[in-house]
Amino acid sequence: MAVKTYQEYIASLRQLKSTAYMFGEKIENVVDNPRIRGGINATGATYELATSEKYKDLLTTISPFTGERINRFTLPPQSIEDLVARVKINRLLGNYVGTCHQRCTGLDCLSALSIVTYDLDKKYGTHYYHRFLDFLKYMQRNDFTANASVTDVKGDRSLNPHEQPDQDLYLRVVERQKDGLIVRGAKVHQTGSLSSHELIVLPTRAMAKGDEEYAIAFAIPSDTKGVIHVVGRNSLDTREIEGVDCGNVRYSKYCPTVIYDNVLIPWERVFMCGEIDFSGELVNRFSAYHRQSHGGCKSGKIDVMTGAALMMMDYNGSAKVTHLREKVVDMIHKAETLYGCSLAASYEGRREPSGTYFINSILANASKIHEGKDMAECIRLLIDITGGYVADLPSDRDFQNPAIAGLLKKYFQGAAGFPMEKRIKMLRLVEKLAMESADSISDIHGGGSPQAHRLTILRESDLNSRKNFARRLAGIEE
Amino acid sequence: MAVKTYQEYIASLRQLKSTAYMFGEKIENVVDNPRIRGGINATGATYELATSEKYKDLLTTISPFTGERINRFTLPPQSIEDLVARVKINRLLGNYVGTCHQRCTGLDCLSALSIVTYDLDKKYGTHYYHRFLDFLKYMQRNDFTANASVTDVKGDRSLNPHEQPDQDLYLRVVERQKDGLIVRGAKVHQTGSLSSHELIVLPTRAMAKGDEEYAIAFAIPSDTKGVIHVVGRNSLDTREIEGVDCGNVRYSKYCPTVIYDNVLIPWERVFMCGEIDFSGELVNRFSAYHRQSHGGCKSGKIDVMTGAALMMMDYNGSAKVTHLREKVVDMIHKAETLYGCSLAASYEGRREPSGTYFINSILANASKIHEGKDMAECIRLLIDITGGYVADLPSDRDFQNPAIAGLLKKYFQGAAGFPMEKRIKMLRLVEKLAMESADSISDIHGGGSPQAHRLTILRESDLNSRKNFARRLAGIEE
Amino acid sequence: MAVKTYQEYIASLRQLKSTAYMFGEKIENVVDNPRIRGGINATGATYELATSEKYKDLLTTISPFTGERINRFTLPPQSIEDLVARVKINRLLGNYVGTCHQRCTGLDCLSALSIVTYDLDKKYGTHYYHRFLDFLKYMQRNDFTANASVTDVKGDRSLNPHEQPDQDLYLRVVERQKDGLIVRGAKVHQTGSLSSHELIVLPTRAMAKGDEEYAIAFAIPSDTKGVIHVVGRNSLDTREIEGVDCGNVRYSKYCPTVIYDNVLIPWERVFMCGEIDFSGELVNRFSAYHRQSHGGCKSGKIDVMTGAALMMMDYNGSAKVTHLREKVVDMIHKAETLYGCSLAASYEGRREPSGTYFINSILANASKIHEGKDMAECIRLLIDITGGYVADLPSDRDFQNPAIAGLLKKYFQGAAGFPMEKRIKMLRLVEKLAMESADSISDIHGGGSPQAHRLTILRESDLNSRKNFARRLAGIEE
Amino acid sequence: MAVKTYQEYIASLRQLKSTAYMFGEKIENVVDNPRIRGGINATGATYELATSEKYKDLLTTISPFTGERINRFTLPPQSIEDLVARVKINRLLGNYVGTCHQRCTGLDCLSALSIVTYDLDKKYGTHYYHRFLDFLKYMQRNDFTANASVTDVKGDRSLNPHEQPDQDLYLRVVERQKDGLIVRGAKVHQTGSLSSHELIVLPTRAMAKGDEEYAIAFAIPSDTKGVIHVVGRNSLDTREIEGVDCGNVRYSKYCPTVIYDNVLIPWERVFMCGEIDFSGELVNRFSAYHRQSHGGCKSGKIDVMTGAALMMMDYNGSAKVTHLREKVVDMIHKAETLYGCSLAASYEGRREPSGTYFINSILANASKIHEGKDMAECIRLLIDITGGYVADLPSDRDFQNPAIAGLLKKYFQGAAGFPMEKRIKMLRLVEKLAMESADSISDIHGGGSPQAHRLTILRESDLNSRKNFARRLAGIEE
Repeated sequence: MAVKTYQEYIASLRQLKSTAYMFGEKIENVVDNPRIRGGINATGATYELATSEKYKDLLTTISPFTGERINRFTLPPQSIEDLVARVKINRLLGNYVGTCHQRCTGLDCLSALSIVTYDLDKKYGTHYYHRFLDFLKYMQRNDFTANASVTDVKGDRSLNPHEQPDQDLYLRVVERQKDGLIVRGAKVHQTGSLSSHELIVLPTRAMAKGDEEYAIAFAIPSDTKGVIHVVGRNSLDTREIEGVDCGNVRYSKYCPTVIYDNVLIPWERVFMCGEIDFSGELVNRFSAYHRQSHGGCKSGKIDVMTGAALMMMDYNGSAKVTHLREKVVDMIHKAETLYGCSLAASYEGRREPSGTYFINSILANASKIHEGKDMAECIRLLIDITGGYVADLPSDRDFQNPAIAGLLKKYFQGAAGFPMEKRIKMLRLVEKLAMESADSISDIHGGGSPQAHRLTILRESDLNSRKNFARRLAGIEE
Repeated sequence: MAVKTYQEYIASLRQLKSTAYMFGEKIENVVDNPRIRGGINATGATYELATSEKYKDLLTTISPFTGERINRFTLPPQSIEDLVARVKINRLLGNYVGTCHQRCTGLDCLSALSIVTYDLDKKYGTHYYHRFLDFLKYMQRNDFTANASVTDVKGDRSLNPHEQPDQDLYLRVVERQKDGLIVRGAKVHQTGSLSSHELIVLPTRAMAKGDEEYAIAFAIPSDTKGVIHVVGRNSLDTREIEGVDCGNVRYSKYCPTVIYDNVLIPWERVFMCGEIDFSGELVNRFSAYHRQSHGGCKSGKIDVMTGAALMMMDYNGSAKVTHLREKVVDMIHKAETLYGCSLAASYEGRREPSGTYFINSILANASKIHEGKDMAECIRLLIDITGGYVADLPSDRDFQNPAIAGLLKKYFQGAAGFPMEKRIKMLRLVEKLAMESADSISDIHGGGSPQAHRLTILRESDLNSRKNFARRLAGIEE
Repeated sequence: MAVKTYQEYIASLRQLKSTAYMFGEKIENVVDNPRIRGGINATGATYELATSEKYKDLLTTISPFTGERINRFTLPPQSIEDLVARVKINRLLGNYVGTCHQRCTGLDCLSALSIVTYDLDKKYGTHYYHRFLDFLKYMQRNDFTANASVTDVKGDRSLNPHEQPDQDLYLRVVERQKDGLIVRGAKVHQTGSLSSHELIVLPTRAMAKGDEEYAIAFAIPSDTKGVIHVVGRNSLDTREIEGVDCGNVRYSKYCPTVIYDNVLIPWERVFMCGEIDFSGELVNRFSAYHRQSHGGCKSGKIDVMTGAALMMMDYNGSAKVTHLREKVVDMIHKAETLYGCSLAASYEGRREPSGTYFINSILANASKIHEGKDMAECIRLLIDITGGYVADLPSDRDFQNPAIAGLLKKYFQGAAGFPMEKRIKMLRLVEKLAMESADSISDIHGGGSPQAHRLTILRESDLNSRKNFARRLAGIEE
Repeated sequence: MAVKTYQEYIASLRQLKSTAYMFGEKIENVVDNPRIRGGINATGATYELATSEKYKDLLTTISPFTGERINRFTLPPQSIEDLVARVKINRLLGNYVGTCHQRCTGLDCLSALSIVTYDLDKKYGTHYYHRFLDFLKYMQRNDFTANASVTDVKGDRSLNPHEQPDQDLYLRVVERQKDGLIVRGAKVHQTGSLSSHELIVLPTRAMAKGDEEYAIAFAIPSDTKGVIHVVGRNSLDTREIEGVDCGNVRYSKYCPTVIYDNVLIPWERVFMCGEIDFSGELVNRFSAYHRQSHGGCKSGKIDVMTGAALMMMDYNGSAKVTHLREKVVDMIHKAETLYGCSLAASYEGRREPSGTYFINSILANASKIHEGKDMAECIRLLIDITGGYVADLPSDRDFQNPAIAGLLKKYFQGAAGFPMEKRIKMLRLVEKLAMESADSISDIHGGGSPQAHRLTILRESDLNSRKNFARRLAGIEE
């Protein structure tokens, strides 16, 4: 059956032979690595809920491409309803995992490719769309997760790709062979790359003349020869390795740097190759979808933060304090703003020539601009409500040390009626929500930098109409 | 035909014999009074566009109650499509009149009554809904405009209605007669009351035991005996009276205090009378609809402000200045946020027992909370972009005074290629948009105070689910 | 005696024969013109308090130039104490007049000239400083008010002065004669120009090669032949003319456009002429002083707004409402921020070669950046606290109209214990504070645009030290 | 000599036999513990700079109590100059250590005690002030560091100390013995308690009748029998233990929970005992001083963040990008606001009866309110400017792993001209500045919660004067 369970997902990951490094060492068993497993579990939640009685109708649908029931995370949206479902599923998952579930980026790539390969073929008579459909059906039938390999390392930001002293600082074609392309480069912030079966590579920006070798899109298995995943440092990362003081007891996030060290890409997996005029189009489509996705998952994460804030008010005996309740309202308002703009972007979507539905980009970016400021503000509010023990909380190991356990348990008791242990666990969750870097940096830089969102809004808005409204009311005849 | 033209609307207003005062004098000819006419014209735009080739399909529809084509401003929403149309029509009108068009409040009353009178009858076996439907059909067949008489003067805010030293500070029933009720009280900020054929009175708040005489809803013609409209002062109001330096050359706004000085309300126009448990429900429904309306018209007004800002950049020779362009992005972002949340509130609406569709109240209030801060910020940005001549611009009369006209024309020339006269007109429009009080105060207090919007969000949000999300992730067993 | 009383000030203004226009007509009697008189009275407060028992010690001091007691508004600061006194006096006056007192700009010009003419002479061997001292002593002995004629009309903002199609869009020398210069141009937003005895002209910006004729500074009597004052429109201007509904019953503000139509400037009044390298220096010094001044007067105005908010809470019966009290805290915090940064700028001042003390420009601009956002926010908060009657309040003439006076008085009663009349007066003051344009536009554009304040901070800050701090802590060896 | 060098400070700490636990284990060697040593070094910087050629004049002065040269961190301010020096020294130290230097709290306790013990004796005829002076001279002669033991664990926030089910949740006297008091309780967020020679205990709040046993102040050595330091978890704590990826290569922060488990306090070290009416006074004085301190050190930390942002712009090749430069301006503006308000609070200080100078509390709190929002915003801006590698940066150990070192070095090269290694180090510093919890939580909760700062401003402001200003201008006669 096309819809995998959580167990089947885990089993499928065990088949992969990825090359991965972390903290100076090679990771031999990725799936059971405690630093990685929280991330795998977060993606696993998309499998778990899709096969749960309660949510299977929301998370699965029938594919018009395979005719089978599939997980929605493998389906480019074919209707307004599909667009809306994306946001609602993402909010649900945000509520469920309290961090990034890491499966949206692959879908955002599939969705962008389903539009652009079609348009590209129309213009150039190429055959990318057909190749893409084959890949899509493969993904659907296997219920695979893909990772979005988009962000290049970029070197000197003031130079175009081909102007860089080192030509590989944007991923590029270094050789064309009979059976495929050889590519070289590195993609960074590769959320969940080791939880993914496939890597989908898109260019990170619009390309200009001279950058033809960089205008490339393709997909390959995440354990392809020459692909190296380097898991970097995050705040709180060693907690998972030690297995203590984790805060979120089930889920986590990691985002490797993925190096493509002379990797062979078979021709049937190449979806763009040299068409510089579609490079910007492809990354813009991807980014717009991804910004819409965030409106769901990040509002869902604020819900968790709001719940944690409310619990801390209970545990601290401050549930009725007016200014804290006002801060809860601020948090809710921010969540609903992200969600509302993202929903509106979906309902106001439109059909593209290939049949895929695209969102309203202005409204999706409106949501993302709020995210870039409001998530940080929600964290600040959560800290304000919780109190100083967002830092400095003794370790669970201290609570287990007989020399001081009794004293700690005595002094960490909060409001009567709530066991001290629950309060400690919630404080630890708050620390995770407030101070973990892997997820929170994406509030700001996920889906492009804040400035990219602003430029998109400016570019997509009809400025001339606005000028005309003003002229007419001012009594200025044109 | 049920859909009136602008001319028919004006003609119908001329039939009214309203009692009105302004600036110490009685207004004898309301329709041609230059201070009032701009407001009438703004409402008139809803008639003009509904009978225009371009917009008639958007602004009119077939009534399920009369079977005739009607102006949408007389139809409580019967579908999600109707809810969405409200927002889009309001944005269009915001673009078209650059101020409040003043016809949404009546529709918001009709919509609220169409839900609550039905529910009320269900509970109490009363017959309000039938009466209301008769009134609704009357409004539709005549394409009448109604005014929302909601906000009472309130006296001492810390006291309930019946606790006030003067019992009339909330409108109330003072006598029940055979042919109807006698009511007394005063409603304030009555946007467009003299541009309306009917006044619809709703209670301004939830009522408690002892406040039965205040839990009242009804409709009467705006020129009913005993109804007195007192048009108050607004910034810039004398410009219209002098007919000079108006800024917005077509449209304006006014909001009288309307006194009900022992007015007889025929029984067939009474829609609630004493049912205190539905009083809060009625005003909450009205307010939620009204907050949704604002998401459309106010984003439309920001569009006009954005257009004015862009034109000023052209006229000043600062079109390419980066920080000004960033401020334009801020304005657009705020407009799209109001609009996006309001649209989402519509798409996420639901059918009520009477068949009327109600919006998602959390999302509508999310939009309104932004309005309460963001409109003021847009004004600030507009002033920043425009420059100091938002104040202190010489009068058109100075530009016509031969003694100095030549000098003024010389010195007010901006960037080459743009006639000085256009720049002056646009500066005047900016002054109107930035410094006019009748409309801008409603950004903050329209549809209830900012705190009311916040309390609504808190009341309507599911806090327990959020707590549960956090508990599960913290590993707290319930 | 050198320190004039309010009456002597008024009498001295009556001696002037200024050429002034307003609303299409010539003003024959400036001093008694009701639109102008409120502004004159605001400046008059600087005379009134300087001769009052309570404040004379604060507002006067002994001049080191004349040896006589003088009004501090004629003394370039000669010590840290003098710098601090500026801020405290301005806050006091903000409290006292509730608007701009309009006398600081002249002092800011004197202060800037006292530094720059000295430095200029040092470099070029010119004799401007001596001329300036003569003028300064003249101002001190007569206790005259001066106006800062700085802001040019500017034409196309993207062009330098000499590049403008019309060469007069920045004020310039058109002819050099034996007895002086002939100048032409127009200065805008000339706060209190008709309440001033003298006009001090400074260049509005740094000048580049080719702009020599624009690098000019001088002083002349405000009624000099060829000087034309055109009083423009403000949002509430006709209230003063009608003498009704004024809000602030004593004080107001006006800011004419002042045209220099071939005006002769005697050589002894010329303080700079062609030295383009000191042009930017002069306007920067002026602006920095002026931004420091704002930190005093505008915090003083917020005090008035805060007081009005608190009174409205009393009158409305909402004195104990928590969220309103929080908004009052926000207002106070903003006032203290403006004040604190401006005070710090004074205490951290330093002696310049001429002996004049200059403020810390970074801290003065830090204050002004807050003003540019926070005054608008204070207005918004004031409106939020007050309620909807910031607009639409019936005219005092309606309250005097026997036909409706009784009804209005009945319905406008607020909390018991406060006469209705006081509530109406306070509501009117709130309208003035919130919606009057002459003063509030200066919150944003006074002392240069918000972007100018930001650029100043960036230019004056030591970025290299900050880089070095970071490098050392990162362990980067240089 | 009274002024210790860094080496002497370290040697003196080695004399202490503190009882300390961390991560489930007892710490045997505190001084050389890598998690603690960064914090000790931060405090050590106050010794290092006080004995440096460049800064010794700023950081030392002659004590009026001992007649000897002392480190200013042992002197309650005796003049306005002393108050100002506090802020400037704190900014310098913020620049120097890039985190909390952890020595200000002890001085803030000394300063508060020097006022309150004097006033207390005046009222009650007690002899606390004399005892305090002896202690103060002891601190000065030994150049000791003290820790502020103020914040209790608090249990149920809605209950007063003596109402708590467990009577020890605020520190209290449990027995009075001949040679002193026995106390029990726990103080939390004890910044630098193991870097301090002495602990100074103050009550954490105003006390009411019934709370007499909680109104207690005293000082004891940090290694007194019964005192247990439990170092809790912070977001990046294991980096220091591993000795890798630390970011700030020299300094860090830690804040134990300190338990007082039946500790004997000799009478000569007791500075308050039961005088509930001075309890609030004591903590308010301490808090006000501490908020003033933050205005210096936190602006100094923003300087470091600004420097890091500027360096990242260089390394990324984005030094000229306009919107990034604007964000740098925002950061500078926030630093100067904290600093300006804190400086003004100092310059506007006043002499208390004991001779100690106290700051202007409104202005100190104005600074702190900004800190509570602006530090978080600066972090957000720093992340925005830096880019996504604030998270996910490979470990230094990966850069040393031969299997991938070459690839990583290739791909992490930024703008030409800057060695890759420097960029990595700076990225690591940014991670530390942005994501470290021990210091950043104090931005929000240090010196009391944000709401405490707001209530202080409201309580200290003269609301009646403000009301009178408004009444006078509205024309309301009293």
